[in-house]
Amino acid sequence: MSTTLKGIAASDGFANAPAYMLVQPDLSFDKKEITDIDAEVERLQDAIKQSDDELTTIRDIAKESLGEEESQVFDAHKMILADPEFTGAVATQVKTDQVNAEQALQDVSDKFIAMFEAMTDNKYMQERAADVRDVSKRVMSHLLGVKLPSPALIDQEVIVVAHDLTPSDTAQLNKKYVKAFITDIGGRTAHSAIMARSLEIPAIVGSDTITKDVQDGTPLIVDGVNGEAVINPDADDVKKYQQLADNYAQEKAEWAKLRDAKTVTADGRHFEIAANIGTPKDLAGVKENGAEAIGLYRTEFLYMDSSELPSEDDQYEAYKEVLKGMDGKPVVVRTMDIGGDKHLPYLPLPEEMNPFLGYRAIRISLDRQDIFRTQLRALLRASSFGKLRIMFPMIATVQEFRQAKGILQEEMAKLNDEGIAFDANLEVGIMIEIPAAAVLADQFAKEVDFFSIGTNDLIQYTMAADRGNEHVSYLYQPYNPSILRLIKNVIDCAHREGKWVGMCGEAAGDSVMVPLLLGMGLDEYSMSATSVLRVRSLMKHLDTNELQDLVEQALNVSLTNADNEKLVNDFVADHRK
Amino acid sequence: MSTTLKGIAASDGFANAPAYMLVQPDLSFDKKEITDIDAEVERLQDAIKQSDDELTTIRDIAKESLGEEESQVFDAHKMILADPEFTGAVATQVKTDQVNAEQALQDVSDKFIAMFEAMTDNKYMQERAADVRDVSKRVMSHLLGVKLPSPALIDQEVIVVAHDLTPSDTAQLNKKYVKAFITDIGGRTAHSAIMARSLEIPAIVGSDTITKDVQDGTPLIVDGVNGEAVINPDADDVKKYQQLADNYAQEKAEWAKLRDAKTVTADGRHFEIAANIGTPKDLAGVKENGAEAIGLYRTEFLYMDSSELPSEDDQYEAYKEVLKGMDGKPVVVRTMDIGGDKHLPYLPLPEEMNPFLGYRAIRISLDRQDIFRTQLRALLRASSFGKLRIMFPMIATVQEFRQAKGILQEEMAKLNDEGIAFDANLEVGIMIEIPAAAVLADQFAKEVDFFSIGTNDLIQYTMAADRGNEHVSYLYQPYNPSILRLIKNVIDCAHREGKWVGMCGEAAGDSVMVPLLLGMGLDEYSMSATSVLRVRSLMKHLDTNELQDLVEQALNVSLTNADNEKLVNDFVADHRK
Repeated sequence: MSTTLKGIAASDGFANAPAYMLVQPDLSFDKKEITDIDAEVERLQDAIKQSDDELTTIRDIAKESLGEEESQVFDAHKMILADPEFTGAVATQVKTDQVNAEQALQDVSDKFIAMFEAMTDNKYMQERAADVRDVSKRVMSHLLGVKLPSPALIDQEVIVVAHDLTPSDTAQLNKKYVKAFITDIGGRTAHSAIMARSLEIPAIVGSDTITKDVQDGTPLIVDGVNGEAVINPDADDVKKYQQLADNYAQEKAEWAKLRDAKTVTADGRHFEIAANIGTPKDLAGVKENGAEAIGLYRTEFLYMDSSELPSEDDQYEAYKEVLKGMDGKPVVVRTMDIGGDKHLPYLPLPEEMNPFLGYRAIRISLDRQDIFRTQLRALLRASSFGKLRIMFPMIATVQEFRQAKGILQEEMAKLNDEGIAFDANLEVGIMIEIPAAAVLADQFAKEVDFFSIGTNDLIQYTMAADRGNEHVSYLYQPYNPSILRLIKNVIDCAHREGKWVGMCGEAAGDSVMVPLLLGMGLDEYSMSATSVLRVRSLMKHLDTNELQDLVEQALNVSLTNADNEKLVNDFVADHRK
Repeated sequence: MSTTLKGIAASDGFANAPAYMLVQPDLSFDKKEITDIDAEVERLQDAIKQSDDELTTIRDIAKESLGEEESQVFDAHKMILADPEFTGAVATQVKTDQVNAEQALQDVSDKFIAMFEAMTDNKYMQERAADVRDVSKRVMSHLLGVKLPSPALIDQEVIVVAHDLTPSDTAQLNKKYVKAFITDIGGRTAHSAIMARSLEIPAIVGSDTITKDVQDGTPLIVDGVNGEAVINPDADDVKKYQQLADNYAQEKAEWAKLRDAKTVTADGRHFEIAANIGTPKDLAGVKENGAEAIGLYRTEFLYMDSSELPSEDDQYEAYKEVLKGMDGKPVVVRTMDIGGDKHLPYLPLPEEMNPFLGYRAIRISLDRQDIFRTQLRALLRASSFGKLRIMFPMIATVQEFRQAKGILQEEMAKLNDEGIAFDANLEVGIMIEIPAAAVLADQFAKEVDFFSIGTNDLIQYTMAADRGNEHVSYLYQPYNPSILRLIKNVIDCAHREGKWVGMCGEAAGDSVMVPLLLGMGLDEYSMSATSVLRVRSLMKHLDTNELQDLVEQALNVSLTNADNEKLVNDFVADHRK
């Protein structure tokens, strides 16, 4: 009999395939004294040989299916296996300590990992720690005779089942064979969920029990739209799934036609759909999906993918590439948002008890003006190549905005004196992600050129709940009337001063949120590029005149997040044109 | 020539006395090989003897000046010195390792401290770790021939100067001789500042440099009202200080007359001034200062001062004592507010990246209903002995309030069945300390009997700034218009539904905040008992009719915290009757 497991819908789409358990086996062992040293060393050499063979296979398959770049990590692993300083040291340890190979392997690899991790000034060497950990795990699995999952070896259609997925796990997933994934933990904003949407793989997260409910090969259906997994589906389930999948495919075909269309509602009003990017590489996806602008360029990747503070010229090149690539369409660049959960190996930040309430983003920029001014100069120089808009993150007070804008104006004056060209009329705005700024939107609206609402932070501060903390994740409530009222206030205050408002948080692409935001008159919606066409299609079917009552209900009648989710879903089912 | 150092005014009052440096000396040393073992052991025994003599003196003086209880810690220290397991082990280590006494002392005490700290299930033994640390420090000072500050030995009037003051430092301060203190770090809400107000010792915190600017004996004036310290005052400074101190003494004399008076404004309106307490012991101060109610009974001390979850009967006794002691005056009891920065040794909480945004207060109570129901039963049983009001902390959503109140009603029904008396009409309210609740005050006001605004948390969430984090302490802005607007909304929404609103955060006793709160119509002000008379006097001199314009300015014209501080201070100077 089939059973249905409910989780969190993390990425749209449907799939029907057997389970592939991406679950770490038990690699625990007991320390043993060894008398037959030679036999033990031979056992170790065998395990190393098997590991090397396995890595060769994985490398070859990965190169074929994922490409040259993704396969290089396995070459690095093979080099570690061949390194006498590492594997030789393990054999020596077996001999000198007369211990089993498992114990010797663990001792030596712990030492290497600690050594690499201690090289805090060298990001390359620090990453080697992860490689040693991976290699050691593989050799250990062969010593213990247990099977390590190798997602890169998947060569038939499966649904990956895991407790959680790390970035390195996801890098190894071949979209050709991995039709969907389901995890025990995580929410819609977890790394794995964002990755799934960007890869366009259907996904369910936060199922709680999937790794306990199925095993390798268990037939599964994933409904990523509704967040439901069917375990051991029967013929009726399969039929129902096929119908849903067909409808979804038809919908997607309709979306594709909207690639070059303007975003227009059923009553003919135009709204702007933009995309969020992290690096110039993301431009391809922006164009493929027909985004009208870039609503959030997260510049912190420039800082994170570097072993030192990026120079003005390096930044200039990156900004210029994006501005030129967008051909005059607007590009909103957010200045450095480091701190909180984002750290730089070369920029030591204070140890903080509550980093999300700490020294981060504009608070660092106003304090470390050397870093801030370098970024602003790079941005200004790049501004001649397109339509740049500069946005400051984590603004709490009008004073902070005035100080940041003052520094920008000083840099403009310097460039002027040096005769360097820049767009003197570029718009300067702020993120609204701190409750204080949302409450004072009327005052800010007199000073800024635009707002962009960051829902992830706005929700976590307004609800006083860290969105990454599973014990309070029930309080991550995008549709809570308190959040909607703050958003409405921001939009109304901006419009009264003739300014525009965007949203660049997760919620801007959310099917429940979009009708509410349209009803409130939000001007710009910035989201994952892969969501653009779905949202453009949704807007085409909505009449903003009919949304006013919905907004009134959601803000002033509903009491809960769940009330509002149901309210909007029922409304859309009834009013879709 | 005199110089003036500006810090944060932490506790009112004036003082003129020489500096006493409560600064830890350098106790570092080098490890040395020892050849003359006997001489080294004798050097150790001398240091132990000197430490013991010193502790006897300190104990005797402390018993005289601070009382029996405060002096007992020094007896405990003397017992450790006499314990052969400790000091004997140090001598043995000198002999076996042939190392200097300093090294042996450090090795042995590190071992003892680690052992005691590992006893996580025994709070008593864990506290012994601190004792060993203190004793070891004292012996080390004699080995190194440096002087350890001994605040308990102070026998003439001084102003204590320290980098920061720990709870154990403050416990040793004799109010008779310590006329004031000044620290380098801390803010108005730091432990040392709260302690100063409770001891009624003038204090300045956050001076940054006082420990560098003065030395033992440097003449000092402390102006705790304005947060200014005068170093090496001249005759004019002393004259000016004397004038200020006289005025202040006169003011205090006026306040004392208000002890049994009702709290009435210049235009004859009555407001309620209440006190915050932590334990039944605090009742004495509540009565001495003429508070009209208890606006916040922080029950977490019951949990923190215990080695296991307090039983229903233990809680019942404490609540009953407070309710009976207040003779029918209202007592607002807040249910357990554990989590965040407050932990219980016997209740393991999850490791959290941002504990202030985590699993705490009502979130724990709703999850651990066993703990919650025990507390509610104890409260209900005590409710027959006075006027109890129950308040839930950290409420973010209407659902949470309904769930908590539902559990309370279930416990009421059970007591009813058991025939146990309780006040079935007791008021049930919530803390407003999460922005979401402040924004939705209209919805909450339909469901609760009262609100009490917790400013410390409300400010830190609204500004997204941990108030304990010195890197963002500039964002702890009680007078920021965003905070004032949220407070105004809460008051207006409550009054529309005929409910009352109190405030039990630091701000309720703040001289700048009180005129604004009066103007907004806040009903109840709960503060440190020692602030009650000052605030009652302030209110007596204010006319609420004249405050409406002030509130309008503060909410809708001012842009910054500093604007509003000046606005109110100027207003009070002009309008005080």
